[in-house]
Amino acid sequence: MSHSGYKGKSLEFLEKNKIEVGNMVRVKADSTYSGILMPRYEYSDDDHIVLKLKNGYNIGLQIEKIIQIEIESHPSVKKENTTQPQTDPKLPKILLISTGGTIASRIDYRTGGVSPALTAAELNASVPEISKIANIDTEVLFSEYSENLLPEHWRKIAEKLNSYSRSEYKGIIVAHGTDTMQYTAAALSFSLSGFPKPVALVGSQRSSDRPSSDASLNLISAARFLVETNTNGIFVVMHNSISDDEIACHWGTRVRKNHTSKRNAFQTIGGSPVFIVKKDTIEKNPLFCPSEKPYNPKINFDSQVMLMKYYPGFDPKLVDHAINSGYKAIIFEGTGLGHVGKVMYESILRAKRKGLFIGMTSQCIDGIVRMTVYDSGRDLLNLGVIPLGNMIPETALVKAMWALGNTKDINEMEKIMQENIALEISD
Amino acid sequence: MSHSGYKGKSLEFLEKNKIEVGNMVRVKADSTYSGILMPRYEYSDDDHIVLKLKNGYNIGLQIEKIIQIEIESHPSVKKENTTQPQTDPKLPKILLISTGGTIASRIDYRTGGVSPALTAAELNASVPEISKIANIDTEVLFSEYSENLLPEHWRKIAEKLNSYSRSEYKGIIVAHGTDTMQYTAAALSFSLSGFPKPVALVGSQRSSDRPSSDASLNLISAARFLVETNTNGIFVVMHNSISDDEIACHWGTRVRKNHTSKRNAFQTIGGSPVFIVKKDTIEKNPLFCPSEKPYNPKINFDSQVMLMKYYPGFDPKLVDHAINSGYKAIIFEGTGLGHVGKVMYESILRAKRKGLFIGMTSQCIDGIVRMTVYDSGRDLLNLGVIPLGNMIPETALVKAMWALGNTKDINEMEKIMQENIALEISD
Repeated sequence: MSHSGYKGKSLEFLEKNKIEVGNMVRVKADSTYSGILMPRYEYSDDDHIVLKLKNGYNIGLQIEKIIQIEIESHPSVKKENTTQPQTDPKLPKILLISTGGTIASRIDYRTGGVSPALTAAELNASVPEISKIANIDTEVLFSEYSENLLPEHWRKIAEKLNSYSRSEYKGIIVAHGTDTMQYTAAALSFSLSGFPKPVALVGSQRSSDRPSSDASLNLISAARFLVETNTNGIFVVMHNSISDDEIACHWGTRVRKNHTSKRNAFQTIGGSPVFIVKKDTIEKNPLFCPSEKPYNPKINFDSQVMLMKYYPGFDPKLVDHAINSGYKAIIFEGTGLGHVGKVMYESILRAKRKGLFIGMTSQCIDGIVRMTVYDSGRDLLNLGVIPLGNMIPETALVKAMWALGNTKDINEMEKIMQENIALEISD
Repeated sequence: MSHSGYKGKSLEFLEKNKIEVGNMVRVKADSTYSGILMPRYEYSDDDHIVLKLKNGYNIGLQIEKIIQIEIESHPSVKKENTTQPQTDPKLPKILLISTGGTIASRIDYRTGGVSPALTAAELNASVPEISKIANIDTEVLFSEYSENLLPEHWRKIAEKLNSYSRSEYKGIIVAHGTDTMQYTAAALSFSLSGFPKPVALVGSQRSSDRPSSDASLNLISAARFLVETNTNGIFVVMHNSISDDEIACHWGTRVRKNHTSKRNAFQTIGGSPVFIVKKDTIEKNPLFCPSEKPYNPKINFDSQVMLMKYYPGFDPKLVDHAINSGYKAIIFEGTGLGHVGKVMYESILRAKRKGLFIGMTSQCIDGIVRMTVYDSGRDLLNLGVIPLGNMIPETALVKAMWALGNTKDINEMEKIMQENIALEISD
């Protein structure tokens, strides 16, 4: 029996009632709830159980308040068409690499574990349209919610993609949680600069067991994007509006998650998406000029970079803490055109003397850092702070981690940070 | 003679050529430049001089490359109409408090110092339209670019406003730099909750000596807003579009600077501005419900709060550094619906055990933090992290500084942070 994550009172309660994770149960408490018993995690308390309701939301129910609990039906693994899809030799081949996230969470609650969802058969069962676009192979790399990903995971994904750079696949889908998708997109853009195939990072804002899920359409559109456009590089493919009429393909270094829950949370900063997938067509942004650089993989990251968002009351001693802790670079999210208060100058000077790289972006997110307009900016330039154009702060952070992974030389680092490696600077 | 900020080689160069700050000069170098010699600051190098060109931009010129420098005319203090404006007893009275910033920087280069610009006479000279809207008194509180402001400055502004809470003024304009205007707006919103008059923070994205300046129209619109609407509370009044047809009045806790340079950089997050000032009308957002709470000034801030933006590779030891440095609260800018990676849990637990307040906002900026949807969120709730709804991260930071200034009790703090004090939570 699986009671994954339950302990103490809640485990006792479940064992007594012969309920296990994945069961569809009916619970009488202040109201009556029907849902699937979900697993719990290490830091959970022991006086709640968690159900996934039919509307897709999870609810925690306090054991003390439960009057009755009973199994409604056994694990609701409807025997959908989970046979391998027929391959069509006329269609191109796509690889789908699964890394976890909401898009892969559909069957979590059915198996009661965190096992990955997107096997080819399951994909075929849940998104049958996709087999008419391409023959899809699937591969599970790992299965993590993306808030738990680290630069080490970026490296794993990049190495996996690199191993397929000369493969027969027309393009590759990376199923990924949305929380840190933009960081991974940036990391792949730098480490696999010039990648010869199109890569679509695809996530979903609502899990595919909810009627409003964006998972299927994002996957179908990503497959169409990979097959129908003759492009290459790293993209994020997600809804472009709250309706189902447009899916956007954002360039990997210029994309940001700008809403916690909307299906069109992802936006291209300072421009428009590169492609818009519509019902019958795929429209290309005429302003987008792809890079002609050859493929040049450099898959190394060094996470000794601190992103510092400046604000009134920010303690300059944090810079000294970074120095003393062995950090090699600081990316500021400054105010406005790229400023921090005068209180920071002495600490910045010390950091520069210790050889740290200090780059400036803006917490405004959109627009260009211009440090020659005001005295504050010119002072910072004189202190050795490097302006990073209109690079978005998260992309600048990832780029610094990547640059440090490939050079230890501060002058080389300064050069790399100001060079347009993967269209991260658009103006 | 004023050579404010010049030293070493550049000072010698200016003295030799008998040029002083404020002079209109013609410089022959790689090209020929006409402009006003600007003052410099403490951290400037000594091998450049800085000119403000006629297009409003500043340029640094390397002394070594200067072939010739000569005075074009004496300080360009055109004797504009700097007489006191006639008061019209039929018009209401407005107070303008100047704190610095671009909007007050017009005459910096004429006087060669950092002396504040907006005296009543100068305002009358540069924005004559305003004297037809209201009789304006002006007062200079301090003169700082807003990137240099600290919570101490918020206190000064709040106390000044508080001293006028029962005055004859119909409303008050606070001229302010745009870099940290949203932080000040939030600080005033909390500390002067229920303020009985309307307060308009007004800045400009382009200084008023540039043809594209937004300064005049922002000031005129703010005066109209104060006089024509019967509202109260703290607002930010800035351009609503890149043209001059609409000025937006944003609610002080829901506004954010979202572009480094555009005139309509300020936006209301998760909604529309409260008022739109048009050529002939002022339109009110029908969805805006003002608070009925009585005026209750609490002008205290404690800056022992750290804003931490989470990202892949974030070092959990930074939380321990915050604990050891005596911080009393941490506001996370988490990912997505309000998450941080599992690597953070142990440090968060230690912080909670030490009695720190830990609040969660989202780096998505727009949308609500919902920590019950995924295990990650529920884990963090179990660790004692407090979800802060759709409060924008910068507002949450300021609110935490304000809350800590008014209570040392963690339970009280948690209550205050979740209570809607100044419409900072809009959903």
